[in-house]
Amino acid sequence: MVWSGHDVVNVLDFNREDLELLFSKADDMRKQLKENHVRKILSDKIIGLAFFEPSTRTRMSFETAAKRLGAETVGFTGEEGTSVAKGESFADTIKMLDSYVDAIVLRHKYEGAALFAADVAEHPIINGGDGRSHHPTQAFLDLYTTRTLFDRIDGLTFALVGDLKYSRTVSSLIFALSMFKPKEIILISPPQLGLREEIKLFALNHGLKLREEKDISVISDADVIYVTRIQKERFPDLQEYEKVRGSYKITKKLLETYAKKTAKVLHPLPRVDELSPDVDKTSYQGYFTQASLGVPLRMALLSLVLGGE
Amino acid sequence: MVWSGHDVVNVLDFNREDLELLFSKADDMRKQLKENHVRKILSDKIIGLAFFEPSTRTRMSFETAAKRLGAETVGFTGEEGTSVAKGESFADTIKMLDSYVDAIVLRHKYEGAALFAADVAEHPIINGGDGRSHHPTQAFLDLYTTRTLFDRIDGLTFALVGDLKYSRTVSSLIFALSMFKPKEIILISPPQLGLREEIKLFALNHGLKLREEKDISVISDADVIYVTRIQKERFPDLQEYEKVRGSYKITKKLLETYAKKTAKVLHPLPRVDELSPDVDKTSYQGYFTQASLGVPLRMALLSLVLGGE
Amino acid sequence: MVWSGHDVVNVLDFNREDLELLFSKADDMRKQLKENHVRKILSDKIIGLAFFEPSTRTRMSFETAAKRLGAETVGFTGEEGTSVAKGESFADTIKMLDSYVDAIVLRHKYEGAALFAADVAEHPIINGGDGRSHHPTQAFLDLYTTRTLFDRIDGLTFALVGDLKYSRTVSSLIFALSMFKPKEIILISPPQLGLREEIKLFALNHGLKLREEKDISVISDADVIYVTRIQKERFPDLQEYEKVRGSYKITKKLLETYAKKTAKVLHPLPRVDELSPDVDKTSYQGYFTQASLGVPLRMALLSLVLGGE
Repeated sequence: MVWSGHDVVNVLDFNREDLELLFSKADDMRKQLKENHVRKILSDKIIGLAFFEPSTRTRMSFETAAKRLGAETVGFTGEEGTSVAKGESFADTIKMLDSYVDAIVLRHKYEGAALFAADVAEHPIINGGDGRSHHPTQAFLDLYTTRTLFDRIDGLTFALVGDLKYSRTVSSLIFALSMFKPKEIILISPPQLGLREEIKLFALNHGLKLREEKDISVISDADVIYVTRIQKERFPDLQEYEKVRGSYKITKKLLETYAKKTAKVLHPLPRVDELSPDVDKTSYQGYFTQASLGVPLRMALLSLVLGGE
Repeated sequence: MVWSGHDVVNVLDFNREDLELLFSKADDMRKQLKENHVRKILSDKIIGLAFFEPSTRTRMSFETAAKRLGAETVGFTGEEGTSVAKGESFADTIKMLDSYVDAIVLRHKYEGAALFAADVAEHPIINGGDGRSHHPTQAFLDLYTTRTLFDRIDGLTFALVGDLKYSRTVSSLIFALSMFKPKEIILISPPQLGLREEIKLFALNHGLKLREEKDISVISDADVIYVTRIQKERFPDLQEYEKVRGSYKITKKLLETYAKKTAKVLHPLPRVDELSPDVDKTSYQGYFTQASLGVPLRMALLSLVLGGE
Repeated sequence: MVWSGHDVVNVLDFNREDLELLFSKADDMRKQLKENHVRKILSDKIIGLAFFEPSTRTRMSFETAAKRLGAETVGFTGEEGTSVAKGESFADTIKMLDSYVDAIVLRHKYEGAALFAADVAEHPIINGGDGRSHHPTQAFLDLYTTRTLFDRIDGLTFALVGDLKYSRTVSSLIFALSMFKPKEIILISPPQLGLREEIKLFALNHGLKLREEKDISVISDADVIYVTRIQKERFPDLQEYEKVRGSYKITKKLLETYAKKTAKVLHPLPRVDELSPDVDKTSYQGYFTQASLGVPLRMALLSLVLGGE
């Protein structure tokens, strides 16, 4: 089994078969959660949480997943008050934690931090997001949500909306989609936030059909409308930001005007104002489903990586 | 059973019978703690701790209570480093946590936050203090401590001393006392920190006998002397604060001069200098008893709300 | 048994026999960890973590140790966001936590904080480092590492290198060594960071042979080379710091030039640049072993203090 004892650093270290196994394991976890009787198969395990960069959702869903399975967690959030603040090297911090725990979930602002940690540590490193390219468990979750909502991934059209340049969830999703056969990926972003060339190149080399658009009305072709936050900090000019922000806002009205009736909106959350709360009660809402699947998906991942049964 | 699966937002959502049940459950929990053998009836549960405002005592007593019963906790303290700092709405944060856990203990500086959360969440919301009116589990604890120390609540005289205006423990206690038949409630505060009109009105409408006093010597009539912190920030004039602070300080000497021999001092803690440490070793001390009952009382609450047996 | 229910405030509250028991218990814990089957003998216990001063290594190793044995933890790190920030006294904070949990691990910047806490609390206080003299569990770990690496402590020569004045691990280690029969203790430090007179006096009164040196080449006589961080803040003159820092840096080359082939370098970690990473892959490296023994040593300590079997 590819998962057992392995690092989870990059989506591309896995193949379609691995992901199918993960998804079917996640189905099993959902069943156990629903029946209110989760087998505590990781009750001898301790998971280290090394969040050099803060996170609510990723941290808490991993922590919940671990604890549902009977595991414990130890760790830190932010560098303040840790040895890092005293000048300890990243490698030493990881080595220390590695000598205490059975696996480490890591988040870091720098690209490659998880790969480096995996090299240093003997226990599995699970990348909870590093730099601007990799957030593998988010991508697994995005595909698992799609599979749950549509019963398939192949043949669907994905519209990726918003900041496609700096968002690690977007690049990770494209890596993950390369193992499946989506019909098309529509990229909808302001020009200054378009998908990076190396990711485009990757997509084309892997047979993904990309289409770049500026106008939001092209969501009409999409099954999955995947929205990301546009961060103010990316814009030197505040006026420019205000303009862009208005043009890419997903609202109930916009969806009713343009989107297919069966389309679903996903969003890695947190959202600010790129996705209107008036979508919450429509049939387009897929993002709360997505959030709630974070725990069973990560339970499946931890159970596969840490064995246990 | 009214407790099972219900939100605990406001003292007034419960009646005397509900509280008697809670108190007798708390007695049972104290017995289990004393015998060092607590039944882990919540071992399948995870409690979310959403402390938007920091807290030591409420957070740690809930956390201890949950863990004594075999439950686990996940959560955050302070908004820094959470999605709230990224601009996420309160509703979205609650929805996310709600999709992970089995109940949420919430603290927030804004009035009504717990009620709003209860509306948004499917799982029970337990108000760990919001705004300046509601802190139901503190009020339950205050009454449970009284019942433990005096074997009754009815017929006792309560003196409430200090900041009666901004303290949510004071208003919550008055709401809770309205379900019982105290002899009298004496309000002792500097004029600028008197009980708010709406709380007074509530008390009168519910048959509570209030008496407002400025002089601390009237504690002579009280069985329970309930002291709260007077916060410097409430006073624009520092001299005024210094004067007030001196006049309402509870000391051993003051108690020996004025109080009944059987009187007990309660305080939600932390105290600063409104309650002298020289009271700690006298028979008047009830506040450490009160603090130590926080865990069994909250164990009782969690076990009633989350079922389990 | 001296350990059961006792405070662990000062190394000197224990004797050689007590430490031998601790070490043999730690051997047993290592065996349980290695076999991946730790008996959860503390599953009814909750350990309070009162870290008034931040810590990564001590906190996380205690937390891991507790959780490996089935115990739970509650607590805080840093004073911010706790009642201490509201002006609560140290004694009240300890009393509160003491009424919730079964033992408290404490870290504080002030000398004597742990002793004071032990006086206030009914449950055992375990000193996780207070002031500049005491860090007993680090000293136990240092000796346990020595015993693991050399199969004995008696007869060995220890070189203590770096800041011997302000380091609480150095003074605690000297206290602990006084129960054994090391051949010699060589003190190597810049003049302004020499061992404090009262610790020297203690050592001499307890039959320890001390030798003070300035030149790092004298590590040639040592079996254990114990390195500590030299903190920039100790030097009013930055140039002076830069000079000192260079002279006491332990590198692969330095060790190969001067040290015995069988010598081992220990370091309480975190290190900054007083110990070069090029030592990591040499036979001199003992500090990662030391770090990894922190968990079984603290498991042994908790199991002895909290009973359980």
